[in-house]
Amino acid sequence: MKKPVVPVTVGGTVSQLVRKMGGTAFQGRNLARGVDIWSSMLEADVTIFMGLAGAMIPAGMRQVMVYLIEKRLIDCLVSTGANLFHDLHETLGRPHYQGSADADDRQLAKSKTYRIYDVLASEEEFDSTEQFVTDFSQRLDPDHAYTTREFFFLLGSELAREGGEDGILSAAARANVPIYCPAIGDSVYGTGLATALVKRGRHVVFDVIADIVEMVHIACAAGSTGVIYIGGGTPKNFIQQVALCGHLFDKVLKGHEYAIQVTTDSPQWGGLSGCTFDEARSWRKVTPDAATVTVHCDATIALPLMVSAVAERVGKTLPERKKPSFRLDRDLTVL
Amino acid sequence: MKKPVVPVTVGGTVSQLVRKMGGTAFQGRNLARGVDIWSSMLEADVTIFMGLAGAMIPAGMRQVMVYLIEKRLIDCLVSTGANLFHDLHETLGRPHYQGSADADDRQLAKSKTYRIYDVLASEEEFDSTEQFVTDFSQRLDPDHAYTTREFFFLLGSELAREGGEDGILSAAARANVPIYCPAIGDSVYGTGLATALVKRGRHVVFDVIADIVEMVHIACAAGSTGVIYIGGGTPKNFIQQVALCGHLFDKVLKGHEYAIQVTTDSPQWGGLSGCTFDEARSWRKVTPDAATVTVHCDATIALPLMVSAVAERVGKTLPERKKPSFRLDRDLTVL
Amino acid sequence: MKKPVVPVTVGGTVSQLVRKMGGTAFQGRNLARGVDIWSSMLEADVTIFMGLAGAMIPAGMRQVMVYLIEKRLIDCLVSTGANLFHDLHETLGRPHYQGSADADDRQLAKSKTYRIYDVLASEEEFDSTEQFVTDFSQRLDPDHAYTTREFFFLLGSELAREGGEDGILSAAARANVPIYCPAIGDSVYGTGLATALVKRGRHVVFDVIADIVEMVHIACAAGSTGVIYIGGGTPKNFIQQVALCGHLFDKVLKGHEYAIQVTTDSPQWGGLSGCTFDEARSWRKVTPDAATVTVHCDATIALPLMVSAVAERVGKTLPERKKPSFRLDRDLTVL
Amino acid sequence: MKKPVVPVTVGGTVSQLVRKMGGTAFQGRNLARGVDIWSSMLEADVTIFMGLAGAMIPAGMRQVMVYLIEKRLIDCLVSTGANLFHDLHETLGRPHYQGSADADDRQLAKSKTYRIYDVLASEEEFDSTEQFVTDFSQRLDPDHAYTTREFFFLLGSELAREGGEDGILSAAARANVPIYCPAIGDSVYGTGLATALVKRGRHVVFDVIADIVEMVHIACAAGSTGVIYIGGGTPKNFIQQVALCGHLFDKVLKGHEYAIQVTTDSPQWGGLSGCTFDEARSWRKVTPDAATVTVHCDATIALPLMVSAVAERVGKTLPERKKPSFRLDRDLTVL
Repeated sequence: MKKPVVPVTVGGTVSQLVRKMGGTAFQGRNLARGVDIWSSMLEADVTIFMGLAGAMIPAGMRQVMVYLIEKRLIDCLVSTGANLFHDLHETLGRPHYQGSADADDRQLAKSKTYRIYDVLASEEEFDSTEQFVTDFSQRLDPDHAYTTREFFFLLGSELAREGGEDGILSAAARANVPIYCPAIGDSVYGTGLATALVKRGRHVVFDVIADIVEMVHIACAAGSTGVIYIGGGTPKNFIQQVALCGHLFDKVLKGHEYAIQVTTDSPQWGGLSGCTFDEARSWRKVTPDAATVTVHCDATIALPLMVSAVAERVGKTLPERKKPSFRLDRDLTVL
Repeated sequence: MKKPVVPVTVGGTVSQLVRKMGGTAFQGRNLARGVDIWSSMLEADVTIFMGLAGAMIPAGMRQVMVYLIEKRLIDCLVSTGANLFHDLHETLGRPHYQGSADADDRQLAKSKTYRIYDVLASEEEFDSTEQFVTDFSQRLDPDHAYTTREFFFLLGSELAREGGEDGILSAAARANVPIYCPAIGDSVYGTGLATALVKRGRHVVFDVIADIVEMVHIACAAGSTGVIYIGGGTPKNFIQQVALCGHLFDKVLKGHEYAIQVTTDSPQWGGLSGCTFDEARSWRKVTPDAATVTVHCDATIALPLMVSAVAERVGKTLPERKKPSFRLDRDLTVL
Repeated sequence: MKKPVVPVTVGGTVSQLVRKMGGTAFQGRNLARGVDIWSSMLEADVTIFMGLAGAMIPAGMRQVMVYLIEKRLIDCLVSTGANLFHDLHETLGRPHYQGSADADDRQLAKSKTYRIYDVLASEEEFDSTEQFVTDFSQRLDPDHAYTTREFFFLLGSELAREGGEDGILSAAARANVPIYCPAIGDSVYGTGLATALVKRGRHVVFDVIADIVEMVHIACAAGSTGVIYIGGGTPKNFIQQVALCGHLFDKVLKGHEYAIQVTTDSPQWGGLSGCTFDEARSWRKVTPDAATVTVHCDATIALPLMVSAVAERVGKTLPERKKPSFRLDRDLTVL
Repeated sequence: MKKPVVPVTVGGTVSQLVRKMGGTAFQGRNLARGVDIWSSMLEADVTIFMGLAGAMIPAGMRQVMVYLIEKRLIDCLVSTGANLFHDLHETLGRPHYQGSADADDRQLAKSKTYRIYDVLASEEEFDSTEQFVTDFSQRLDPDHAYTTREFFFLLGSELAREGGEDGILSAAARANVPIYCPAIGDSVYGTGLATALVKRGRHVVFDVIADIVEMVHIACAAGSTGVIYIGGGTPKNFIQQVALCGHLFDKVLKGHEYAIQVTTDSPQWGGLSGCTFDEARSWRKVTPDAATVTVHCDATIALPLMVSAVAERVGKTLPERKKPSFRLDRDLTVL
């Protein structure tokens, strides 16, 4: 009981303000700890998996994500399908719109406007992007079972060739950051491909099991792994379970050594999304002495703050991060 | 402002007590409304999709789910992989255990015990069930891309043949209630099959897009659809998106006409799991005048209560529910 | 890890269903534990303090509270002013009304209708009850500093003399269950008395410190104390702090030995309302080995359930509870 | 649907980053709106009431509060007793300490250490501060019924005379910012005064009703009022109810015209702490067209951010804020 709480003072740069929160308590202290852990991961050149759930792209987090990819503040992204669809949507020049959470939804339905809390989207514009997905699928090999990484790499590469401002998919293709999507059917990618299946008799078959094998391969190739979860859902669990699968490559994975989650869920509901990293310790998904923190905060506040603080802190001093040590190709499973 | 709040009095049967909550307010009133809507669905013979997320089987909800399937209080189940794995686990005679949320997780890790909030599981026993999944996969056709429904029907049928007390999978196979799992890779099914892929060179390829087509087919074949969501996650969205896909079969789906969700999430975080059914109206996922309710309550309280109340209410008066009007087979997509 | 989770089955009486939840997990198990602890308190004849926060009377919990008082399932009530005002309001024959959480509030304002989530109240009717408070105050002694217990005892006695169906105040006056209100100014009692002060030059002075002394006296006179918190707020803390004040009467209070809270708050925000009973142990507000449980659930569901289950369980077997061992009068402080 | 979401980019000053959040969604957008509304209040010279609940001082928010008072970013403070006690504690040179939410509470109890989530306090040091309160009370007039404002003004003045770094109480006394505490008995002020009552036969009688009258007087004297709520509890309601009491001074108060709340509560539980400002509109506590926002975020993150952004934004351009237009003395009620 020797370390006093140091009342935060007003002002300073973003990084300084966050650092001062580190001397306080509750979620402010946790936010600061998140920045510390992230910075430590970068300094130690840990392979960083990020899980991304929630409607983060409609909520304006797309350029933060692009930054993370381009600056290599993460090494591998696992996302819901929705976020990757919304990214595609914006890359194709179709924005999301600022609306109100109190909108008249029956009226919105009449005007063919979708609502995502206080964000709106045009049904017609969404349909065009879905159509793009359907069309894109026809350019893929009907006889190949794709990992979702392959699918998004091909899609991102095509978008990158088109030029324009990078989004998540194109930036990741350029930077060779793999993207996985464990529930790809649960999104407009799914419904766009369902249209391909029914109306054109040709769709994309995904080898969702091979996704797991690749992820485990990345973890086995890494000296050390860390995780950052924005929300829970399938991305979080999909990354967590990797730590249990070293036996695929006859290795013992000791668990993630760094772990940050930003969540609005709580442990008492018993679900994986809100569970503590202590619980994860019982599974050996994280190591006994992992550096962990849960930041209970809406990611639209916490993510820009944390990334701005990390960027400010490591920006000048950090050497360019090493290239990732993993290589992924179709023959991965016989490596 | 003509209808007074009627203070709830102590006592009565479960159904009576819940009905009395209907005269009160806040989530008690919503719980009662959930029972009303569910009962209405049964009386109107609506096709009912249930989404099941959260660790509901470790939390003791397995027999409630079996009841729902056997009594046909639901027609189609969409679940996380975890719940279906935990069901398999218990069907194979391996229990979950009562523990404490305050357990020493480092100690649990040493004793190879997994914790799920206040529930424990044996790592060894989990491994045995995972092994069962790996082995089961070797009995499937390596040249067929399975829908998750096919996979779980085959697995459930095998379990049903073994006899013993029914679980979700076996009961559903017997009752011909289809089960979908949009993120099957995100569970021990996924890791068990990854082992099959790496160690035995033969796994299961899932056609996750065909899942969508089947679900839309079911909705198109129904006169009217209703939804019940226990938690959010992929099951909720996977069922919601069906309402937008009538065009696959050249139909206009008007949206789900009944909708219940039991959730511990909140709308202000902007995610699909916690969003209101009003938001769903803007998408026409539910009809403008759908009967909807969100019950903000842990499902371990709300689900046994609601099902017991529904059972008590409709038990004696309801004629046996009609057989489902949909037929699912491998040729579905050419129907 | 010897005790398996026992899946809950559908049906049974309220008490049986809750007991079955006790074999499950998460908040269902906690709810069952709450009933167990409450029953234990009754069997051990513990002095039970209940804290009541939240708009529980508009939400239809008034008759449950009356039942608790009449059947002596609690011994002392600490409440927000609002609940006690709403009780008075209903005792005077003015109901709360069922409304909708989605109402048009600007329109409600125009029609002089107050909204409390999905409950409505008439501004005019509220004004009449406020007027009653103002008038009542003129019948009190302007030269006496009242404890809030005295005030509510006098008010409840007057209401009891009027006859009619009992509410909280009249039932408590009859049953000699003391009621405390640590923030009485923060309610229509406060504003009604402010009117008395400004417009009639004569109001009521409360000795809010003497309230504390009385509460500590009750705790010191009890062999053992237990607490039940419906929500947090001032009632919870006001009861908790009693355990730290034995020195007032030169006693060592060891802390509450039984503790139940029903809350929708969470520990991670750092406030007293959502904090754990473990945290309370560090303060010795509860004993090291106290029987404690937090039920994370809306009280409009949990309270009728728990009380119905307790009533069913102890109803037939329990001898009439002993009279409380404390005596309160104006000379308390010189006892 | 004309205004696109503008993805936030990494970096900038605190104010710039928050402003960029304003182009996004969910709570990030709300946080930015909170800064906008606060800035508008300052520019329009509105009388600003702040409500402060939660353990904000142990959580390191004391210097932010001092800043708000000294720079006159608020005009009147309503607080829980705990925050004002913790402020006194630190002013007397006794810190709170950084701890862990996972501490062993039984061990803490043995070492006489109190825990407030992840903050610790020494029981002995708390006792010393409580003793200070008891002693201070003996220097007050036993025949006067004090408003809590008077009490804290006298206490703050004494502290200010002692010199040293200012805390909330001393800064407010210097700056003539009134402080109210509607539940003063519910804190160590209460227990310290209870000791005075029992052990020294002389305590402090508070006129908690006069507090209301003064608050209404301030509102009536203001051209326009705004509110900022950090948490809910009694401070929020105590300020809200002022808007309904213009009749005390034969005025019609139209309601607060600006309203910000930072909360971790949610509307669906029906309580006043989590209710929307729309609900407040039905009561005319806020005007129909008030500028309002609820920021769902832990205040340990939101408050330093918002205040730093406000300070940065208005710091250079704003003329010194006018002195408050109200005057408070013992004869207030006959003004």
